[in-house]
Amino acid sequence: MAKSVFYHAGCPVCVSAEHDVITLIGEDQVEVVHLGEDRNRIAEAENAGVKSVPALVTPNGNVLHINFGASMADVKG
Amino acid sequence: MAKSVFYHAGCPVCVSAEHDVITLIGEDQVEVVHLGEDRNRIAEAENAGVKSVPALVTPNGNVLHINFGASMADVKG
Repeated sequence: MAKSVFYHAGCPVCVSAEHDVITLIGEDQVEVVHLGEDRNRIAEAENAGVKSVPALVTPNGNVLHINFGASMADVKG
Repeated sequence: MAKSVFYHAGCPVCVSAEHDVITLIGEDQVEVVHLGEDRNRIAEAENAGVKSVPALVTPNGNVLHINFGASMADVKG
């Protein structure tokens, strides 16, 4: 199975959700992308349909917005 | 590992998220509760911290609100 991608921006809500997602799905099944540090992937996240972080993009392309840390507008600053 | 509990209310957002969560985590790791049909578990969900559905309560008690289907107020009607 292809990996899911977990986008976050380092906020406390994001970090907590990251731990939960990794525990549930398995670390080897998730690529973690910190959009605050890896800003050239913001466009990729938006194209995938990510509207807020933290969000998990599944292997079949669905976006699961998990809790609410920050909007993409906030991430772009 | 204890199971996670996925609370939903049958809305399209819930059903889509349910499929994703089951695919990602594994059907045998998730108990699915339909609060529209199993209304006597609404209080249990609220006590767990569920504020909207769909939501996943992890084995360690964290609540992951996934996308947004309906508020608990709407579920209670």
